[in-house]
Amino acid sequence: MDKPPISRYPVPALQDLPEDLRARILEVQEKAGFVPNVFLALAHRPAEWRAFMAYHDALLLKDSGSLSKGEREMIIVATSAANHCLYCVVAHGAILRVYEKKPLIAEQIAVNPQKADISPRQRAMLAFAMKVCDESHRVDEADFELLRGHGFDDEDIWDIGAITAFFGLSNRMANLSAMRPNDEFYLLGRVPRNKT
Amino acid sequence: MDKPPISRYPVPALQDLPEDLRARILEVQEKAGFVPNVFLALAHRPAEWRAFMAYHDALLLKDSGSLSKGEREMIIVATSAANHCLYCVVAHGAILRVYEKKPLIAEQIAVNPQKADISPRQRAMLAFAMKVCDESHRVDEADFELLRGHGFDDEDIWDIGAITAFFGLSNRMANLSAMRPNDEFYLLGRVPRNKT
Amino acid sequence: MDKPPISRYPVPALQDLPEDLRARILEVQEKAGFVPNVFLALAHRPAEWRAFMAYHDALLLKDSGSLSKGEREMIIVATSAANHCLYCVVAHGAILRVYEKKPLIAEQIAVNPQKADISPRQRAMLAFAMKVCDESHRVDEADFELLRGHGFDDEDIWDIGAITAFFGLSNRMANLSAMRPNDEFYLLGRVPRNKT
Amino acid sequence: MDKPPISRYPVPALQDLPEDLRARILEVQEKAGFVPNVFLALAHRPAEWRAFMAYHDALLLKDSGSLSKGEREMIIVATSAANHCLYCVVAHGAILRVYEKKPLIAEQIAVNPQKADISPRQRAMLAFAMKVCDESHRVDEADFELLRGHGFDDEDIWDIGAITAFFGLSNRMANLSAMRPNDEFYLLGRVPRNKT
Amino acid sequence: MDKPPISRYPVPALQDLPEDLRARILEVQEKAGFVPNVFLALAHRPAEWRAFMAYHDALLLKDSGSLSKGEREMIIVATSAANHCLYCVVAHGAILRVYEKKPLIAEQIAVNPQKADISPRQRAMLAFAMKVCDESHRVDEADFELLRGHGFDDEDIWDIGAITAFFGLSNRMANLSAMRPNDEFYLLGRVPRNKT
Amino acid sequence: MDKPPISRYPVPALQDLPEDLRARILEVQEKAGFVPNVFLALAHRPAEWRAFMAYHDALLLKDSGSLSKGEREMIIVATSAANHCLYCVVAHGAILRVYEKKPLIAEQIAVNPQKADISPRQRAMLAFAMKVCDESHRVDEADFELLRGHGFDDEDIWDIGAITAFFGLSNRMANLSAMRPNDEFYLLGRVPRNKT
Repeated sequence: MDKPPISRYPVPALQDLPEDLRARILEVQEKAGFVPNVFLALAHRPAEWRAFMAYHDALLLKDSGSLSKGEREMIIVATSAANHCLYCVVAHGAILRVYEKKPLIAEQIAVNPQKADISPRQRAMLAFAMKVCDESHRVDEADFELLRGHGFDDEDIWDIGAITAFFGLSNRMANLSAMRPNDEFYLLGRVPRNKT
Repeated sequence: MDKPPISRYPVPALQDLPEDLRARILEVQEKAGFVPNVFLALAHRPAEWRAFMAYHDALLLKDSGSLSKGEREMIIVATSAANHCLYCVVAHGAILRVYEKKPLIAEQIAVNPQKADISPRQRAMLAFAMKVCDESHRVDEADFELLRGHGFDDEDIWDIGAITAFFGLSNRMANLSAMRPNDEFYLLGRVPRNKT
Repeated sequence: MDKPPISRYPVPALQDLPEDLRARILEVQEKAGFVPNVFLALAHRPAEWRAFMAYHDALLLKDSGSLSKGEREMIIVATSAANHCLYCVVAHGAILRVYEKKPLIAEQIAVNPQKADISPRQRAMLAFAMKVCDESHRVDEADFELLRGHGFDDEDIWDIGAITAFFGLSNRMANLSAMRPNDEFYLLGRVPRNKT
Repeated sequence: MDKPPISRYPVPALQDLPEDLRARILEVQEKAGFVPNVFLALAHRPAEWRAFMAYHDALLLKDSGSLSKGEREMIIVATSAANHCLYCVVAHGAILRVYEKKPLIAEQIAVNPQKADISPRQRAMLAFAMKVCDESHRVDEADFELLRGHGFDDEDIWDIGAITAFFGLSNRMANLSAMRPNDEFYLLGRVPRNKT
Repeated sequence: MDKPPISRYPVPALQDLPEDLRARILEVQEKAGFVPNVFLALAHRPAEWRAFMAYHDALLLKDSGSLSKGEREMIIVATSAANHCLYCVVAHGAILRVYEKKPLIAEQIAVNPQKADISPRQRAMLAFAMKVCDESHRVDEADFELLRGHGFDDEDIWDIGAITAFFGLSNRMANLSAMRPNDEFYLLGRVPRNKT
Repeated sequence: MDKPPISRYPVPALQDLPEDLRARILEVQEKAGFVPNVFLALAHRPAEWRAFMAYHDALLLKDSGSLSKGEREMIIVATSAANHCLYCVVAHGAILRVYEKKPLIAEQIAVNPQKADISPRQRAMLAFAMKVCDESHRVDEADFELLRGHGFDDEDIWDIGAITAFFGLSNRMANLSAMRPNDEFYLLGRVPRNKT
């Protein structure tokens, strides 16, 4: 059977891409062993691709703040599940398992953050992310107070909100374009490396 | 009475900003007569600011496609109202009035797109934008067919969806930071230029 | 271009109206400088018109109670926005601006009462109005206690609830009849009188 | 055990009421055998009482139009159940049973109009009433077309919408004041008169 | 007029049923004076019928725990109303009236549990049942604490949740099959026995 | 680290269980290699356990009807995800992967049935299941017609609805008791047997 397409829109061939896109894609392929489909599907629009990746990197690659890389992925998985975005739940679920070295955590957070094996601090973080996702206009000072009580400072709160907001964009683009997650993501991080 | 702050977060002074941010801000001020607060409030995070503006420009300044500049603003106003984002409803409501030269259109679209004085094509465009805004996972081929029947091609549909997705991010950042629209926006485009 | 009709239903000419309707309409015209369309659109049914105006006057023209005229308009704007009623948001938004002498307040309250430049007491008043608007069956003693803590007595609470209830009726009639706000309302109260 | 109060607010004694209220109340008592609590509970505010009754009579006592008296009560019961208003479901459920001479119809319509023993025309009527009740801003020309196909003219459609709108007000006032239905209503119309 | 069918599906004749089903049905008929339609409608699938009745009996006929028989019926009526299940609201509303000897209680609980003439303990019980009915994934330790404060132990809480869960199944089967309540239920428990 | 408990309620030891429960549990263990936690967690109440398993077997082990075993699991996964039930999404997701021999299908259906790699017939089946899950009172003849057009007969439709209804019960019991899926389920069916 033919593989279903990875996007409802045309997907450019690697050789037809602007040099900066191609370079980044080859770098990711080198590191991950495959090219996550989002890099190819969004390349349909190079200018938007560049802005998307710049935003992504500003939020997820930065070193400052108290949010661990795993916690950032928790936010992505929880809010992407609320937005019913298959691409982000599957791709970031994989990254979350890898970062946290917890093979069960992605399904736990996707289905019901309340029942996940996470800390009370992380539970508060996800409750706030869900509020930004679903009803950001109700965010108020009381939410900030609550999060500060869990040790988050205001910059951390910006991070939680901004990651939620950015993946709200990402989820909608993935749903619009019927973006398909790479098969590789489904299994990633489920089995300890030395076992496979 | 003191003016309320334009953001819950610290707002950098113009002279403390990186050169590229300052240049863009001065350019906008030159053109508009004032600096829209979003340029200052988001400057709290220069890397995110740059990505945000690049995305904004890619979607709103591009010349291709069949969506007029006014139609793009209609999408922003309709979906920002659904997200209860005061900044975007007020700021882009102003821009919409100016582009369309219709002083009543912003409130019409913000309160109920169905009752606005717009064309059936624009009504279909806004209905799709609202679907991407509220339940993007239900977008399917039938939506594309419907829009094609109104003369939109698939690139236009990407534009509608992407503008909605981007302002979904923008709305959440504005709500998170309690971003305040400039007073100037409220009156802009309501009175024919030669009358004031 | 022809002006769109102000109602989906036939609108009687002034000279065809019963004397009491005509007298009131002329009085309003005298005072406001134009006839708000609700007076004409509902005149399609004189008996209902009379009851509507009597109810309106009982709630909005009375002198007793601690709710200012501006506060009553805040309730109308907030709940009419929740009901997506263009007529009431635009017409009462104008009246609100005039009463409060605050040109920004109508959009603030229509888009997100939490972010409006109002007092904590007014915020509590609007939260209760929204509860009566959206889920009146959940109103309970705790709501009364909360409002009493802000200085409202039980008669004030009846006023808040009754204004909300009456405009719930009004919003539905305006939406049913596709009632169109007068163009004049959009600009009213935005510019200090001596400036125009 | 003491009877619970019929309202959260003070209920005036009959002798303390303005003459016109007392006259109407005595007339109702004469006819029904008891005074429905709404007449007493709303008498807390005579001016509003008068407007309420005038509106009520204009919609429910009028002879024109194709809606039978039973059909008007169907609308009231269906929308009052959606608004979780005990007073109106119980009181108008009783009147509905009496008018239609169908002892089962009130529960059927309150719980699920789709499953009630009513005609397709009545089902369409209630579907429209529910739309006016829950999302009146989505009412459009297609709804009118559908109802016309069932033999309703535009005046009938106004009636359906106006009854829904008026009881939306009534439901909110009853919920606000914790209005209690008279015990008599619960049994009314359940047993053929000659059997009891 | 022909009686409407009691199910969208074929209803087996008593003589065609397996012996155990027939025996139970005759026993119920003996006791109640008529056969509640659920026994006949579900008999379309004998294996499911047996499991259904076993579950029902395990929850409703057991003697242990602090929930009275009337309280169990309150749970059924409140959650079945939320699920818009006519069969269960009418049939169990009747049983509730009989057990509690309160002719008004079924409508009170079906329309708005908050306004019913029940104890604070029963109100907390129904609030929890509604949570299990509508958003069981949000049940957490705080709910258990609250109920313990009203004197429920953890086995009682299981009972509340399990009755809600079982009637969630029952409501869906009744809605799927368009199950019709027996006419007898509507009047049951409304009039003191010695008066009829 | 200690394993978290599999239920908020006490879990009986195998040797303390009634003989019939123990026998079934040992049989399952023999077949699956481990005991799914639902068998142990629900054993807290043997009478309910028996009814639960009888219902389960009547729906899932029967040979008649056109629904394949994999399709029944699709229904369970889709509706359990809507109910945010971690146990059922994970456990039945595993069974679904095994039956369908499709390692990606569980996440696809849990996150967004519209985007799953399934047939149009299966998509219609899941749309109906979701309707029974979320708003069973709206099920009507048109739904039956639609499903018949996809080759389902009325017995199949009963099966779809009954599986949905039964897992609605199961989801609520799992959420009530904080039932934890066995770790084994997460990986099951993801890798072809001969590869591990």
